[in-house]
Amino acid sequence: MGIKKIGERTVAFENPPSVLGSACVGGKKEGEGPLGGEFDILNEDALFGVETWEKAESKMQRLALSAALGGAGLEPRSLDFVFAGDLLNQCTASSFGMRDMGVPFFGVYGACSTMAESLILACMAVDGGFAARAAAVTSSHFCGAERQFRFPLEYGGQRAPTAQWTVTGAGAVVVGAGEAGRSPPRVTGFTSAKITDAGIRDANNMGAAMAPAAFDTLSAHFADTGRSPGYYDMIATGDLGSLGAELLRGLFSDAGMGLKENYADCGLLIYSGDSRDVHAGGSGCGCGASVLAGHILRAMRAGRLNRVLFAATGAMLSSVSTQQGESIPSICYAVSIENGAGGLKG
Amino acid sequence: MGIKKIGERTVAFENPPSVLGSACVGGKKEGEGPLGGEFDILNEDALFGVETWEKAESKMQRLALSAALGGAGLEPRSLDFVFAGDLLNQCTASSFGMRDMGVPFFGVYGACSTMAESLILACMAVDGGFAARAAAVTSSHFCGAERQFRFPLEYGGQRAPTAQWTVTGAGAVVVGAGEAGRSPPRVTGFTSAKITDAGIRDANNMGAAMAPAAFDTLSAHFADTGRSPGYYDMIATGDLGSLGAELLRGLFSDAGMGLKENYADCGLLIYSGDSRDVHAGGSGCGCGASVLAGHILRAMRAGRLNRVLFAATGAMLSSVSTQQGESIPSICYAVSIENGAGGLKG
Repeated sequence: MGIKKIGERTVAFENPPSVLGSACVGGKKEGEGPLGGEFDILNEDALFGVETWEKAESKMQRLALSAALGGAGLEPRSLDFVFAGDLLNQCTASSFGMRDMGVPFFGVYGACSTMAESLILACMAVDGGFAARAAAVTSSHFCGAERQFRFPLEYGGQRAPTAQWTVTGAGAVVVGAGEAGRSPPRVTGFTSAKITDAGIRDANNMGAAMAPAAFDTLSAHFADTGRSPGYYDMIATGDLGSLGAELLRGLFSDAGMGLKENYADCGLLIYSGDSRDVHAGGSGCGCGASVLAGHILRAMRAGRLNRVLFAATGAMLSSVSTQQGESIPSICYAVSIENGAGGLKG
Repeated sequence: MGIKKIGERTVAFENPPSVLGSACVGGKKEGEGPLGGEFDILNEDALFGVETWEKAESKMQRLALSAALGGAGLEPRSLDFVFAGDLLNQCTASSFGMRDMGVPFFGVYGACSTMAESLILACMAVDGGFAARAAAVTSSHFCGAERQFRFPLEYGGQRAPTAQWTVTGAGAVVVGAGEAGRSPPRVTGFTSAKITDAGIRDANNMGAAMAPAAFDTLSAHFADTGRSPGYYDMIATGDLGSLGAELLRGLFSDAGMGLKENYADCGLLIYSGDSRDVHAGGSGCGCGASVLAGHILRAMRAGRLNRVLFAATGAMLSSVSTQQGESIPSICYAVSIENGAGGLKG
């Protein structure tokens, strides 16, 4: 049997899975941003009625998946698998978040690329014939991430201008066996992630660490598919932020292939430019996840966008690796989501 | 298209992937244990020639995958994907371990169940037609785990009698498109993991937390497949340890279905009963991974075992969840590995 690959690193789904439902959840700051109206659920603080930030993050995952299922008229038991991940040590936002859903569980870790990674795995499970329906769920929480990766909030630490603001948010996407010509957006394929390390050691400059990974995967995608960047209505990176997005534009320009106005970064879409302390933009698993599950998939369902390449990047470091003087290995998964009956199949 | 499921939670692979190669790596204590002769690579200390335990764990992953590929006469570039995970915060043993392999990467987190989880995903990628060959790689390191989860080694903390000893080890399994009747062991299917929480709050008693998850998945496996425990030459849990294994026997006995001598726990196989400080047995991602990739798959290749159910369990907690008074959500994935042309297909 031939495998479903085109080119070096791209998989073209045989029966592109349909996006049956999606939903996103955010905190106060996310609600005040330019995409505030596109969140399904917003909370007025960062606690969602529970006593710790970590428990709040788990609750966001639960709320996002329940809303995505509800919107699709589905029950949790209609899912064969859920793929979930987050930034907390040992990915506890996911294990505790999904604990009571009763859905067979796969935990994944791709740092801020986790929504793309989990969506790819969910689609492989569906297109491979292992699941009728599967979900991808991903989250992050500003307060939990600051405490874990940097300083407790009470410390009031100054943040570097290249630093980004971890999104308090979660996104869930439910996919199911697709039928050609059906109306929902369909995931037509993906380009896999190779670990890329450009030698960046500054953990306050993740955009610089991740931009080369985005370039690596996106250029592989265009080479494998024969598509040019102009094919897509939107190419969205997950959270490169202002500096990383500028670096990515530069890398493409150096390669003789410009990124046009169809290029966007979820970390730049989610907060206003003048929002206090955001600096280089939003970041975190919940950034790309909530912008995809809200803003982007809403626009696709409404026909305002028809061809989207969602390319979430991840910086695969930890506090310990930074303390040990290591550079930052980075990855990027690109997922092609399209309306209509077309596909990536060669 | 019908999906490849039998019963509620079990997938039967259509073309069961073959185990093309496997290898395991261990430290000094593992080399001194009863399975010492079955490791491919042993180090005389826990550092493997590098300067930190975390870097040593990454090196073990690299060594294990290189040895598994070498044994199969394959190059890294012949792999379409590698699925890798570990216990370190943000799974850095995997991201740094796989950084220079140049193989498309998926990071997974299933605590001590990670070898079963990553092997399942690798097999889904192969049976689903997305990969000609894929690898599963998993590791843990005693010194890094003690520092991260409990106390720095220098503290000389006493360990509880129910505590287990994190294995310093890594395992790698390479799978590829199977041909019926070929000689290598083949992965015929798996039963997925539901998160189970029996309310155990003692992080020094993971066996008690994980035994109900093992019972849940194993009983689903027997119900779905119509097989009885006696069908298998070996049913191996990953690291329940002496207490967890006893609890699992009790749960099966209460359900009117005894586990016989074919039941083994990798955490009890890897160290001698009188080994200093091991207490309830070995644990960690590297425990099940190295025993599967070494002892079990060697015995299958030699025909001493022909039907194995590898059921690795994971305790999905973190230090923070324990500090916040949470109980321990647990999971178990069961993977059916068989010699010969048979299969799980209904």
